[in-house]
Amino acid sequence: MIELSGKNLIGQNEVLGTQAKIQATNPATNEVLAPAYPGVTAQVVNEACSLAWSAFRHYRNTTPQARAQFLDCIAEQIEALGDQLIERAMQETGLPRARLEGERGRTCNQLRLFAGVVRDGTYLDVRIDPALPERKPLPRSDLRFRRLALGPVAVFGASNFPLAFSVAGGDTASALAAGCPVVVKAHSAHPGTSELVGRAVQQAARACAMPEGVFSLLYGAGNEIGTALVAHPQIKAVGFTGSRRGGVALMQVAQNRAEPIPVYAEMSSINPVYLLPGALTERAEAIAAAFVAAQQMGAGQFCTSPGLILAVDGPELEQFLAQASQQLADTGCQTMLTPGIHRAFEQGLAVLEQHPAVTTLARAQTAVGPNQCRAGLFVARAADFLNDERLAGEVFGSCTLVLRCADAEEMLQVTQALEGQLTAAVHCAEVDATLAKQLIEELELKAGRVLFNGFGTGVEVCQAMVHGGPFPATSDSRTSSVGASAIERFLRPVCYQDVPDALLPAELQQANPLQMPRRVDGQQ
Amino acid sequence: MIELSGKNLIGQNEVLGTQAKIQATNPATNEVLAPAYPGVTAQVVNEACSLAWSAFRHYRNTTPQARAQFLDCIAEQIEALGDQLIERAMQETGLPRARLEGERGRTCNQLRLFAGVVRDGTYLDVRIDPALPERKPLPRSDLRFRRLALGPVAVFGASNFPLAFSVAGGDTASALAAGCPVVVKAHSAHPGTSELVGRAVQQAARACAMPEGVFSLLYGAGNEIGTALVAHPQIKAVGFTGSRRGGVALMQVAQNRAEPIPVYAEMSSINPVYLLPGALTERAEAIAAAFVAAQQMGAGQFCTSPGLILAVDGPELEQFLAQASQQLADTGCQTMLTPGIHRAFEQGLAVLEQHPAVTTLARAQTAVGPNQCRAGLFVARAADFLNDERLAGEVFGSCTLVLRCADAEEMLQVTQALEGQLTAAVHCAEVDATLAKQLIEELELKAGRVLFNGFGTGVEVCQAMVHGGPFPATSDSRTSSVGASAIERFLRPVCYQDVPDALLPAELQQANPLQMPRRVDGQQ
Repeated sequence: MIELSGKNLIGQNEVLGTQAKIQATNPATNEVLAPAYPGVTAQVVNEACSLAWSAFRHYRNTTPQARAQFLDCIAEQIEALGDQLIERAMQETGLPRARLEGERGRTCNQLRLFAGVVRDGTYLDVRIDPALPERKPLPRSDLRFRRLALGPVAVFGASNFPLAFSVAGGDTASALAAGCPVVVKAHSAHPGTSELVGRAVQQAARACAMPEGVFSLLYGAGNEIGTALVAHPQIKAVGFTGSRRGGVALMQVAQNRAEPIPVYAEMSSINPVYLLPGALTERAEAIAAAFVAAQQMGAGQFCTSPGLILAVDGPELEQFLAQASQQLADTGCQTMLTPGIHRAFEQGLAVLEQHPAVTTLARAQTAVGPNQCRAGLFVARAADFLNDERLAGEVFGSCTLVLRCADAEEMLQVTQALEGQLTAAVHCAEVDATLAKQLIEELELKAGRVLFNGFGTGVEVCQAMVHGGPFPATSDSRTSSVGASAIERFLRPVCYQDVPDALLPAELQQANPLQMPRRVDGQQ
Repeated sequence: MIELSGKNLIGQNEVLGTQAKIQATNPATNEVLAPAYPGVTAQVVNEACSLAWSAFRHYRNTTPQARAQFLDCIAEQIEALGDQLIERAMQETGLPRARLEGERGRTCNQLRLFAGVVRDGTYLDVRIDPALPERKPLPRSDLRFRRLALGPVAVFGASNFPLAFSVAGGDTASALAAGCPVVVKAHSAHPGTSELVGRAVQQAARACAMPEGVFSLLYGAGNEIGTALVAHPQIKAVGFTGSRRGGVALMQVAQNRAEPIPVYAEMSSINPVYLLPGALTERAEAIAAAFVAAQQMGAGQFCTSPGLILAVDGPELEQFLAQASQQLADTGCQTMLTPGIHRAFEQGLAVLEQHPAVTTLARAQTAVGPNQCRAGLFVARAADFLNDERLAGEVFGSCTLVLRCADAEEMLQVTQALEGQLTAAVHCAEVDATLAKQLIEELELKAGRVLFNGFGTGVEVCQAMVHGGPFPATSDSRTSSVGASAIERFLRPVCYQDVPDALLPAELQQANPLQMPRRVDGQQ
């Protein structure tokens, strides 16, 4: 058992903060959980960043093998925390044991996936164009290309994935894989969970003899510490999962620096779901059951929760609505992550309930404890949706608005009016093929992932996943924050021209001592 | 012969502007060249962007083969312009025939390189993770990943490469290769050259039956049209080569949009050159001769021109300086691109000449015509350079400041203080290996290209080139504007989950009808 200290982790040191403190609340009981975590000063932020920078000079040059072992070791150390981690996370988040155990598995798989990505070496994108001394009219130099780490990365823990998108989550794993030290700003909702995972990373860094400062973990109430971190000249990229307002604020800080840096913010998505006429005719009830299950997952506290449904008005849609309403009304309530999230959910639902163009179809059963999510299902006409952008905002939690579209044409029109999304789901039957094809053409321009006959709530961690999408789903549609390609966010290319072999980085040397894949003269 | 019309090209139409006109000046004679090019209104910008958006819906789905043919055809059409293009470009830029013929060759090679990149298909980054229906505890869906075009791209022509970085230059070629329509804002210094190349692209689009609006060319005096273009909601990325002030202004416009978009601005670089002690002992004279030749190339009007030299003070450096000063003093003057560029060059040199810490070592011979670049060579102590950031600014043209470093330590200290660069060059002998290795470690963090025993002025167009670097060399260090990887700037990933094979884009279908390379389950 680790005794929680309430301290910040600066490299291998622990430092008690001196500023306003953070303290977790058990959302299921409103009990305040010890210990308190006093926040750091800007001076301590500076220490962590300077240490990260000095670590960067060594860490970026560690071998792929050494970095992969470090990632594997972090996974082992997280597993070694055992039930203490799960129990603390349950207290701090209200999430059930099975979900947190699953999330721990995903977090460790993710670390191991990136260990594999580093060992594989494709991410280096090595290209070699050998010298052509005899070429006319001019000879060609020897040119060698690789990607290298950007520099220290600031990572912001997310409230809704206290393990998989927090201290040692996807952003941290992919940044460390790329060769970037990480400074994490812990999410204020789960400071104890953060400390436990932070100590696991700290322990792994020690066990693997990683350079001091490769990882630090900071606490701070309010926005000051996060802003100072993003503004720090030795931070070279930012990973963030959270609200649109928070993400946009960090984008602005990053853009106003003397040296602007990339921000990878995953922010806001309502994840449209299309129920095509043939699918509704064929299996309205089954889709309704699957929808309610997806909407209930994690009390809807997923970036990929189905917030919007589009269907052509008619008796098949009525059947779906009746079935979904019935099932939803029968469901109980789940505790939400924080009192603040619960408050925002209630406010979001109140806007819909009071909106003249919106009809409330169903609410889940009355809450029986504090901070419980009473799921909601609403319906409006597509034409009204198009006229009021408030209806297109994300309500974080189990809340779905169904749009009655006059016809397929209007469904496409709404689609073109949507902002960028993380996911879009199409339920179709064979008779819907023509419309489905039209929709794909629209949806691939709007979303990072287009899926069929399912819901986007589960996000597989693999080579082909994209968890991204046009603004405001993310701040940078060219990237994914989940899956192997997430490492690319933290790399930049450099070309080496006529550099003597002995002075080249190992992956570019003629003998290829690290056995990394390479493209020579354009050929794989 | 094409008769220059003074008109904007909007898709296949030509439209005479109604606003303030642009007219080229022959910088060698100060003669004003006909015709005038009246600028467009914001309304015409809107028409071009709307047309580009409607073209995008078709163009992005053209086959790789069709897009490659289009790129090849543009190259043919540019070559078919024959001597008219070279002569007009000579008049508008003051650049000599041989240089422009070489640049035309590079421009056409570049278009053909991207045709090859499209045919090869590696840029699509296809990844397939097949379904695992039996996996425990949860089955895996079928997941397929590809990269697709961002949308219409705004390209700003550069003054210093009227062909290779202008209307059909690297930005246009890589955007069209990616599947993005292009709207070019012509550079005001070479409107006739722009029209000729624009008509070649227009002709190629017609010959290849490309969708109307895949290419447009706009003229506009001042910044209004460029700003309107970057702010337009149907533009999804920006390519720019030019001044730091201009690039930063476009970055701000792009960031302040309702949907922020990426800007690829290549802006400012002084391209440090390191003369290590062993190299100076071995061959100071030869390096001096090579340096003066590189500094003279194109009157120094290259982003990669050697603006800064660092060496340890001592008799070997004196020998280099004496030799370089002598050679520079003997050189004649070359006409610069525009009166404005010439004025800024003279002002930049005046700042150095009047700076108390700077000694003027040599100026080229007195100018014999208007707008001629009288090259300059200056020297200062490294310590003074570190104390005055004005000394680190780019002077566009043949102007080099040599820094006397007290020792290797100070040379490294200056390096750490430098801003981001496009290139860094190291001249070394075998005895310099230790210092050279230390420098590489610093320089790869500062520059997009590190080269040995040469100068960065020539930029090979190939797989392994990087023409990029940390801010302010570019706005986005993760990318290159020259070479095959430039296409990646205009792509974003999308994942397709459980999409029926017949509805998938061709490159993701199981039978791989386009025969594109793919990674299946992580294996190439």
